[in-house]
Amino acid sequence: MSINQPVVKPGEFVFSVTGLEHVHIYSMCSALIQAGAQLKSIYEPDEKKRSAFLQKFPQAMPVSSEAELLSDPGVHMIAAAAIPCQRGDLGIRVMAAGKDYFTDKGPFTTLEQLERARATVKKTGRKYMVYYSERLHNEGAVLAGEMIAQGEIGDVIQVTGFGPHRLGTAPRPDWFYQKAQYGGILCDIASHQIEQYLYYAGEEDAAVTMSRVGNYAHPQYPELEDFGDCALTGKKGTTNYFRVDWFTPDGLRTWGDGRTFILGTKGTIEIRKYINLAAEKTGGNHVFLVNGKGEKYWDATGMTGHPFFGQLILDCLNRTENAMPQRHAFKAAELGLLAQEKALRLSRDEIKF
Amino acid sequence: MSINQPVVKPGEFVFSVTGLEHVHIYSMCSALIQAGAQLKSIYEPDEKKRSAFLQKFPQAMPVSSEAELLSDPGVHMIAAAAIPCQRGDLGIRVMAAGKDYFTDKGPFTTLEQLERARATVKKTGRKYMVYYSERLHNEGAVLAGEMIAQGEIGDVIQVTGFGPHRLGTAPRPDWFYQKAQYGGILCDIASHQIEQYLYYAGEEDAAVTMSRVGNYAHPQYPELEDFGDCALTGKKGTTNYFRVDWFTPDGLRTWGDGRTFILGTKGTIEIRKYINLAAEKTGGNHVFLVNGKGEKYWDATGMTGHPFFGQLILDCLNRTENAMPQRHAFKAAELGLLAQEKALRLSRDEIKF
Repeated sequence: MSINQPVVKPGEFVFSVTGLEHVHIYSMCSALIQAGAQLKSIYEPDEKKRSAFLQKFPQAMPVSSEAELLSDPGVHMIAAAAIPCQRGDLGIRVMAAGKDYFTDKGPFTTLEQLERARATVKKTGRKYMVYYSERLHNEGAVLAGEMIAQGEIGDVIQVTGFGPHRLGTAPRPDWFYQKAQYGGILCDIASHQIEQYLYYAGEEDAAVTMSRVGNYAHPQYPELEDFGDCALTGKKGTTNYFRVDWFTPDGLRTWGDGRTFILGTKGTIEIRKYINLAAEKTGGNHVFLVNGKGEKYWDATGMTGHPFFGQLILDCLNRTENAMPQRHAFKAAELGLLAQEKALRLSRDEIKF
Repeated sequence: MSINQPVVKPGEFVFSVTGLEHVHIYSMCSALIQAGAQLKSIYEPDEKKRSAFLQKFPQAMPVSSEAELLSDPGVHMIAAAAIPCQRGDLGIRVMAAGKDYFTDKGPFTTLEQLERARATVKKTGRKYMVYYSERLHNEGAVLAGEMIAQGEIGDVIQVTGFGPHRLGTAPRPDWFYQKAQYGGILCDIASHQIEQYLYYAGEEDAAVTMSRVGNYAHPQYPELEDFGDCALTGKKGTTNYFRVDWFTPDGLRTWGDGRTFILGTKGTIEIRKYINLAAEKTGGNHVFLVNGKGEKYWDATGMTGHPFFGQLILDCLNRTENAMPQRHAFKAAELGLLAQEKALRLSRDEIKF
C-alpha cells in the first residue's frame, strides 16, 4: 500500500486557513497537502503569526478578512486552530458559508456550542471535523486499529490511555491559562483519549462514570488544570480510563510519553506513541501485540501512513464518512464536555470524607 | 547492602503453616526461611497438598489438628493460604492463640470479617499481616519505593496499576469460581493494587470513587469476575486507578504483564514487574525512571532483595511496625471490600443509559 499519497489531482480539493493559535495548524496543513489538497488563502490578523505561517507555507495567499476567506467559492474546506472557546462559532460560520470545517481539538468548550454546531451540520449538510491527532496522526495508533479490525486481540473490553504533556518554560498564550477560553483539561487534551476509546472499542455512545481534575503544582496559574482523569462506560459494556496531565518531566526526550493499552478477550495491544522509554532509538509509533501467538513488536513508522487525511478529502468531495463519522467526532467532544462538567475537584489539601 | 540475609539466628523465630489452598504459601515460606525463620510444623488435612508441601519443605513436621498447631508455645507465627472466605476466622483463632498471623491476599471476603479481625488485633496485640506479593516480593516494586523516598519524582500525585492474571487451562479449585468463597476480583487480586497505591502515594486513607466488575468471556463460570477496575481518591488528594483481569494472553511468556505507573510532580516511574514485552531477556523487575535528569532504566533483579520479610520477623520479635503498619494492611483490604460492594456490574449486553 502506498503511504500518504495524494488522493486527488492538483487543484481538485482546495482549503484555506484561519486561526493560528495552536501549532497543530502546521501539521493539519502539512497532512492535507501531502494527501493532495491545495492550500489557497490565509486570514490571520496577527502579523507575527501570519509571517511565521507564510515562511512555512508561502503558497498561501493572505486575505484581509474572514468574510473574504469564507466567500471564496473555489474553497472546499477551512482548516483552523482558533482559541478553543471560539472554535465552535467559527465552525458555524464556515458551515453557513457552505464549506466543511476542520478544527484542532478540543472542538468546543461548552455543550451549548456543540449543540449549535450539531444543528448547523444538520441544516447545512457540511462537516465539522476534528484533528484528533493522537490517533489520526500517529502510525502506531493507526496500526493498532488495523490489528483490532483483523481480530488480533478478539473483542475489545477495555482501553486505558495516558496523555501526559509538557507545559514547557516558554510562556504559552494567555488563553491557555484561562478556563473560560481553553475549557478545562478534560474537554481539551482529553478529547483525544475519548476519541480513541470510542474508536478502538467500537462504541457509539458512553456514559461518564467518573471524572476528576486538579491543579497540584501550578499555583501561578490558578485556572490551569494540570491533571485530569476519567472513566467511561460504553453502551456495549466496554470500559475506558484515561489520565492526562501537564507533568512531562524535563528529562524526557519528547513532549510526552503517550500510551494506549487495549485489552481484548484474546490479546492485548500497547502503543508507545511518541517514545520507547530509555531505548537507544528515538521516535515513536511503537506497537506491542500479545495474543495466542506470542509477543510481537513493531516500529510502525512508515508502515501505515495517516489514511485519515486522504479519506477526509474524498469524504468532502463525495459526501461520504469514511475518515470519521460526524456523529463520532461530536460524541468524543460531548463526553469530554460532560466529564469536565461533572469532574470532582482534587487538591493537595486534605479531602474530607 | 546485603540482600535477603537472615535477620535472626537459627531458632530465634519459628513459624508453622496451615492452609495450602494457594501456591503463594510456597513463596511466603521460602521468603521467611531466607530471612532466617525456622519452619516447624504443618497442619493440612488434604494428603496430596500436604505431601507436595513436604517434598519442598521436608523440615516441616506434620501435626494432626489445627489445635495442636496453634497450641505449640514455641511458635511465633502461623503462615497460611486458606480459602479466602476462611482466612479471617483462621487469623482470629491464630491471634487468640497468642501468635502473629501471616496470610495470603486477599485477607478477607467481607467487611464483617475485617471488623472482627481489627477487634481481635486490638484485644490481643497480635499481628494480622498480609502477603501483598506484587509489591513486597518484587524487586522492581521495592526499588520504585526507594526512588520515591529519595525524592526522585517529587510529590506523588497519581498511581495507575494493571494486574492481569492468567486463568490457565488446568482447573483451579472449586472455591476459585465461587463468589462467596473468593469474594470477588476487587477484594482478591485487586488488594495488591490498593496496597501499592496507599504505599507509593503515602496515603493513610482513601475513598472508592468508582468501581466496576464484569464477566465478559467466561459464561461457564458465572460467578467468576474476569474483569474489575477501580478509582480511589486519597485523603491527601492523590488519585489511583487500577484494572485487574483474567485475560493474560496464552502467548505471553509469563503469568501477567503487571505494571505500575507512578506520576509525581517532578518525574514518573514505570515498573514492568514480570516481563518487558517482546524484549529478548526474560524476567521481571524492570524500572523506568524519568525526571529532570533524563530517562533511566534498571533491571532491579538482585538490587534490593525483599526487605519486608526480615522486617516482619523483627517486627514480630520486637513488636514494631517497620515491615508494614497493621493499619495499612487492613486499610488496603477494607478499600477492596468497599470497592467490591459498590461495583457497577458490566456486561456485553447493551448498558441502559
